[in-house]
Amino acid sequence: MDAAEFRRRGKEMVDYVADYLENIEKRLVYPDVEPGYLRSLIPTEAPLEPESYEDVIKDVERVIMPGITHWHSPYFFAYFSAASSYPAMLADMLCGALGCIGFSWTVCVLAASPACTELETVMLDWLGKMLQLPECFIAGTHGSGGGVIQGTASEATLMSLLAARCKAIRRVQATNSNYSESDVLGKLVAYTSEQAHSSVERAALIGGVMMKQVPADNSYAVRVDMLKKMMEEDKAAGLIPFYFCATLGTTPSCAFDRIVELGPLCNEENIWMHIDAAYAGSAFICPEFRPLLNGVEFADSFNFNPHKWLLVNFDCSAMWVKKRTDIIGAFKMEPLYLKHENQESGRSITFTHTHWQIPLGRRFRSLKLWFVFRLYGLQGLQAHIRKQVALAKVFESLVRADKRFEICAEVIMGLVCFRLKGSNELNQNLLKRITDSREIHLVPCQLSGRFVLRFAICARTTESSHIQQAWRHITQLTFELLQEPSH
Amino acid sequence: MDAAEFRRRGKEMVDYVADYLENIEKRLVYPDVEPGYLRSLIPTEAPLEPESYEDVIKDVERVIMPGITHWHSPYFFAYFSAASSYPAMLADMLCGALGCIGFSWTVCVLAASPACTELETVMLDWLGKMLQLPECFIAGTHGSGGGVIQGTASEATLMSLLAARCKAIRRVQATNSNYSESDVLGKLVAYTSEQAHSSVERAALIGGVMMKQVPADNSYAVRVDMLKKMMEEDKAAGLIPFYFCATLGTTPSCAFDRIVELGPLCNEENIWMHIDAAYAGSAFICPEFRPLLNGVEFADSFNFNPHKWLLVNFDCSAMWVKKRTDIIGAFKMEPLYLKHENQESGRSITFTHTHWQIPLGRRFRSLKLWFVFRLYGLQGLQAHIRKQVALAKVFESLVRADKRFEICAEVIMGLVCFRLKGSNELNQNLLKRITDSREIHLVPCQLSGRFVLRFAICARTTESSHIQQAWRHITQLTFELLQEPSH
Ligand SMILES: Cc1ncc(COP(=O)(O)O)c(C=O)c1O
Ligand SMILES: Cc1ncc(COP(=O)(O)O)c(C=O)c1O
Repeated sequence: MDAAEFRRRGKEMVDYVADYLENIEKRLVYPDVEPGYLRSLIPTEAPLEPESYEDVIKDVERVIMPGITHWHSPYFFAYFSAASSYPAMLADMLCGALGCIGFSWTVCVLAASPACTELETVMLDWLGKMLQLPECFIAGTHGSGGGVIQGTASEATLMSLLAARCKAIRRVQATNSNYSESDVLGKLVAYTSEQAHSSVERAALIGGVMMKQVPADNSYAVRVDMLKKMMEEDKAAGLIPFYFCATLGTTPSCAFDRIVELGPLCNEENIWMHIDAAYAGSAFICPEFRPLLNGVEFADSFNFNPHKWLLVNFDCSAMWVKKRTDIIGAFKMEPLYLKHENQESGRSITFTHTHWQIPLGRRFRSLKLWFVFRLYGLQGLQAHIRKQVALAKVFESLVRADKRFEICAEVIMGLVCFRLKGSNELNQNLLKRITDSREIHLVPCQLSGRFVLRFAICARTTESSHIQQAWRHITQLTFELLQEPSH
Repeated sequence: MDAAEFRRRGKEMVDYVADYLENIEKRLVYPDVEPGYLRSLIPTEAPLEPESYEDVIKDVERVIMPGITHWHSPYFFAYFSAASSYPAMLADMLCGALGCIGFSWTVCVLAASPACTELETVMLDWLGKMLQLPECFIAGTHGSGGGVIQGTASEATLMSLLAARCKAIRRVQATNSNYSESDVLGKLVAYTSEQAHSSVERAALIGGVMMKQVPADNSYAVRVDMLKKMMEEDKAAGLIPFYFCATLGTTPSCAFDRIVELGPLCNEENIWMHIDAAYAGSAFICPEFRPLLNGVEFADSFNFNPHKWLLVNFDCSAMWVKKRTDIIGAFKMEPLYLKHENQESGRSITFTHTHWQIPLGRRFRSLKLWFVFRLYGLQGLQAHIRKQVALAKVFESLVRADKRFEICAEVIMGLVCFRLKGSNELNQNLLKRITDSREIHLVPCQLSGRFVLRFAICARTTESSHIQQAWRHITQLTFELLQEPSH
């Protein structure tokens, strides 16, 4: 395919994309295929010779679309929102053409494309200011902190945990020089809420450290007393608390850990506090939600996903650290055990080509932020958040007005947790009917042992009418369910 | 921006991209800006109100382009190639519009968009067959193995190391039940070539295990004797060898570790063998290069980057494992230490919402593979590889014909390592002149303590004329350099 054909096909693709998104609500939101459906629809091997573009594009509807969950349908209410906007898509087209591989300051100072690294830093400053982050997180106004774009919140959490692990090992070894690295590793304890996302547990698993789940209070938030108690017990047992991951906007119910009280404890005890605000973080650009971020000044690192709720297409997770050197330190290529071993054995290990090595490359993701910030403006982004929160309130009132249902957690952002008053089984049956109908898509969670339905406002194009329609659908299915002889 | 405006702007962007790529060689390949140049060119805060699209797009040339290294310029010869093709860009546009977040089978069986997961598996089967991988790696023909798309080779290496770590810990604990997890961690040793990419060291650093560099032979390849000797010594010292990362196509000189001899040793000794063929792997689709992959049947996992040399835009790294359960096992959410702790303390830790949690999301990357495979066909891809290897040979003969220069490593693929006969300083000076001229872009490496220039055939559009031109440029700068009084 040459440039001339790309011009033609690219424009057709732009129209295809616009058609798809304009008509998305006519499609069943949830696919109706059997697992393994796709394999039989396409050949078992790649073609030897090129096929025609027409054949390929025809197969998008024949092969791909039947197996797609339409995340951007206004009837998609599952998980949390996944951002999508036209400006971000345009930026991504440009990003693909430039195809420059950014080198991150977290691992390497050499910039292969300065524009890539520098726009990223400045965009995270812009974003940090929108969130009113303390100055210590802003690269342009303070020396030691700054932002970096990660692919996902999971990666950000892992980075923070590894940085904390490295710092803790150095600190412990500084006072106990006879401890080996693995001696320390075996004593380190990380903490997070029992309501935290699974990626937090996974970070600990990858980092090879113990992680304990802190029980949450009635509103599903972690309070300082509980964390303090667990830490005291662990210290008494000879363990070394070193890391706490707070969640602002938990995955099951969008609860907010009390970082205002947790932060000072972490600071006193030399515990790295990371804040995972993957979904809810976007809302902090609105002054009315910003108080929920109070206490961020105690955090060592903070992260949220513009790719969830800030109209920036996947993947783009924004992370700030108070001290860049903490992150860099965790990745420099003379790990502790090597230094140690060198000293002991006299064996010389040289890293011969660190001056040009290619570290973890990354796409030019900051372009998406730049396009979205400028083409929406802060006010446009705030309007988006406010609209989605208002829609959640609409749904909440519909649920509250129906005495058969109950609301299961305070509705603060774009998520409503609700259920039928009655058994878990009843609610499981309701969800099964909803899923089987494929007209709207929800996923469940468990709260205090109860099976709960989550209704999240997701698509940019969801309007009040879609909420009304979804509720009519749910009550219709409820009616049918409750008619059944067994109830 | 609504759909109508997107149609208009999207088509303009398609033209901008085509114009950029058609005229890329007129731009200086390497940017001429000072570090920090960008910050002063744009405001310090995001705009409150939306800006016009014209203003944004004008800034691409004003702000971004001056700081871009043009990776797809035919005069870019640095690092290794970064793939770029029109079919892959079209697929990426579609991927952005679908915006469905794939859930990987490595962490979760639930498929949020079956098309996404299934196309990935089938595409890696197609690709595996192109490479003539043993059947045990092909998901469609054998039960236990299969392929998965990772973002980068670094992530694939990390995954393999973590899987190996988990397996080793379980194995050791099965026979030494009094060993804690950290006791084992402290004894585990991983190995890789001294020529391996820094991401391999980093994987060990992240995983908290010791890694040793195996000295390579004269051709910069690891041989079995050396690995065996190191392992024997380590075992005698009470350590536990568990992982070896072989490189096929090392970063400095594109050398090939001898997996045919290394594989059987690893299998005998219960060592996980991972193969990192990040760059060179693409060439194995050509029968004449396939013998270099012989021995892959001994590997537990194998990885290469279609985003380097197979015309699939970044990011797309293809990984195969012999046993899927090994990878899944390393990430299941009941880590050993928790089990252990549960048993001892009786405290119950429940993972209440694993049935719906959102794991590491991923873009719909297999679409790019599908488009590229079908629109090039296997023969088109083979032609691309062969052409680039032939261009490297052209450059090699130019170097060999000039007695002032020497070739520093066998030219097997698209990389030529060369230098001026003379001191490292002389070669550093030559590289400095090349970099300062900004007309072509190279990076250096060190081989046996010598400073060496790497000339890699990178861009899809590089032709023999560009090679000739680059060589004229290098010899001109050499002439000027050698004219200087100091020489
Ligand atoms: C609180 C929280 N943290 C982390 C994640 C994971 O985000 P990512 O897919 O970016 O890793 C989620 C996803 O919903 C989440 O809700
Ligand atoms: C041999 C080798 N392994 C790994 C990498 C890193 O690849 P990635 O950027 O996909 O992590 C490179 C990069 O050039 C490489 O040459």
